[in-house]
Amino acid sequence: MSEVKVETKGSKRKTGLPFIDCDIHNEVPSPDALKPYLSQRWRQYMEMVGTRTYHGFAQHIPYPKGNAGGTRQDAWPPNGGIPGSDLNFMRKQLLDPLNMEIGILNCLYRVAEQLNDEFSAALARAVNDWQMEEWLDKEPRLRASIVIPYENAEFAVEEINRVASHPGFVQVLFLPRTREPLGRRRYWKIYEAAENHGLPIVIHFAGLGGNAITSHGFPSYYIEDHTTMAQAFQSQVISMVCEGVFERFPGLRVALLEGGFAWLPSLMWRLDQQWKRLHAEVPFLKRKPSEYIREHMRVTTQPMEEPPKLEYLLQVIEWLGSNEMLMFSTDYPHWDYDSPELAFPAKFPIELKKKIFYDNARAFYRFK
Amino acid sequence: MSEVKVETKGSKRKTGLPFIDCDIHNEVPSPDALKPYLSQRWRQYMEMVGTRTYHGFAQHIPYPKGNAGGTRQDAWPPNGGIPGSDLNFMRKQLLDPLNMEIGILNCLYRVAEQLNDEFSAALARAVNDWQMEEWLDKEPRLRASIVIPYENAEFAVEEINRVASHPGFVQVLFLPRTREPLGRRRYWKIYEAAENHGLPIVIHFAGLGGNAITSHGFPSYYIEDHTTMAQAFQSQVISMVCEGVFERFPGLRVALLEGGFAWLPSLMWRLDQQWKRLHAEVPFLKRKPSEYIREHMRVTTQPMEEPPKLEYLLQVIEWLGSNEMLMFSTDYPHWDYDSPELAFPAKFPIELKKKIFYDNARAFYRFK
Repeated sequence: MSEVKVETKGSKRKTGLPFIDCDIHNEVPSPDALKPYLSQRWRQYMEMVGTRTYHGFAQHIPYPKGNAGGTRQDAWPPNGGIPGSDLNFMRKQLLDPLNMEIGILNCLYRVAEQLNDEFSAALARAVNDWQMEEWLDKEPRLRASIVIPYENAEFAVEEINRVASHPGFVQVLFLPRTREPLGRRRYWKIYEAAENHGLPIVIHFAGLGGNAITSHGFPSYYIEDHTTMAQAFQSQVISMVCEGVFERFPGLRVALLEGGFAWLPSLMWRLDQQWKRLHAEVPFLKRKPSEYIREHMRVTTQPMEEPPKLEYLLQVIEWLGSNEMLMFSTDYPHWDYDSPELAFPAKFPIELKKKIFYDNARAFYRFK
Repeated sequence: MSEVKVETKGSKRKTGLPFIDCDIHNEVPSPDALKPYLSQRWRQYMEMVGTRTYHGFAQHIPYPKGNAGGTRQDAWPPNGGIPGSDLNFMRKQLLDPLNMEIGILNCLYRVAEQLNDEFSAALARAVNDWQMEEWLDKEPRLRASIVIPYENAEFAVEEINRVASHPGFVQVLFLPRTREPLGRRRYWKIYEAAENHGLPIVIHFAGLGGNAITSHGFPSYYIEDHTTMAQAFQSQVISMVCEGVFERFPGLRVALLEGGFAWLPSLMWRLDQQWKRLHAEVPFLKRKPSEYIREHMRVTTQPMEEPPKLEYLLQVIEWLGSNEMLMFSTDYPHWDYDSPELAFPAKFPIELKKKIFYDNARAFYRFK
């Protein structure tokens, strides 16, 4: 690829703290890019039927259209592809100028939401093979999520076992709007496989699992859809804790990506309070809910909550009860990208920033 | 009724601050109690079909069974009825010992959840007539919610117009798990009627509107169901604000009952932040989302969140950005009753307690 002028607006950064980005999106440029990784049967199926999900036939729908498909306006690569689809451009726009040590890819191609379980599994294999060949084997600074057909645990476990030995895969990806709450037993085999391979699972903003996105149906506007994603994360945390997932899988680690975190302290208070009165219903829980959350769960920063005063933000982080829980993420190349230069208010304590930028992710992912 | 020994455990209170209780539950003792208020057609219907909701045929299901049907164990009246069904006993156990100035009844009989709209409307009329005759006309310290068939706005408006002139009715009752988000236009005629009569609407814990109770289906345990109710409240707040309800009905007041409140500051931060970037989608919003919330919405205390330190609780209240928003409630006679003696930590500031116990509710309800 020829040299191109690269916009680095909002991401100029020649020096600075060491830095791990826990949420970058690599995009499958088009279904055609997956065809080399699909068997003839599934290539034909894709041509005949396409992708069928609870969204209908749509494939790229997690973001509103806008000028740039829900992405940063400057993130369109010069090769004409969609934002996030071109490794060279990502190097020039993100990895190099930010001086990034490690960046973790979360490919949001709609895999687990396919209504046809076998096709879902075939797409997961194709996306993971594509990730290995086009991203992980080409760029040592990048790591990636294993994409799985999580609504069918048997197929999901097969896929984890197939690719977990590749050193580029560092976690297993879910979206929070699943068919059932993630604490339920239909997903436990997946947690067992992740635990066996020493891989965390991550839950990333998006998804549609056949349920309305609130307990009272579908809201009219995208701003509501986007804002209520935090509620999806909240009830997934409640589910995983209350169903005893962390008693059953004591080695399981979970990160919540792009769900916010300022809601987490009050959720821990509420859940601990309920547990005091209702623990007899869930006798397999041996500890307070908040203890499981602090030990097993991590949250990424983007979208960083913006309270009116810095002290409120620091207070929220104190209330988490642990300085280990927050991990930095940019969400490149999406429209609500957080720059490491701008995400933190000026007087944010440097020691805490170091932990959020680097130490916490390194410990969680056990990076050397 | 003969004199009975009354348990007042947890509610001894001879003196103390003036006190308004924003959430007391009066219970219809049995469907038979409504029959005098139903026409022959609906009496026959009730006998032939019974009540049919998204819960199936169940009527009294908002709380787990426990020893006392989800209520305080000492709340069973000596006349053999169910807790909350006997005014005399409520006087002796709640109103007298607590020295209560005003108590507001929220009758949770499943009315709006009926699948048959006409029956839903008939039940609402019956419950409201029963409330006037058996409660409001007998006890001047009590006020009540108008129960409405809120899934059919036409019938709901008829019922509001029918009974709003009774001085005992001070608000209109919704449950948060509705068929569609409460910001949507199907409910607007109800807000118009409430605004015209100067009545607030309140949204009280409970309900099932045909959607799963999370964006990922039904959780296994009651502790999850109970805890995720806070998420239902959150997405209703988001819906009412984002759909422009408070621009359309600038006189509308809304109170959230039994949904907690420690989650509200971070929700306001998140929503304001989204609105900064996405306001073009909702151009009818003239102000920041948090401004509508502070001006139009109130929250009750029970279940009072219990952070590990008093200062955290005070900080949350500061973050609400208004000392006017919190109103005290006991939730009598339910199992998670909050006593006015015990709900606040010892060092809770007295001025703030006065506002929460009395001033805020008096202003919100415009009590003389």
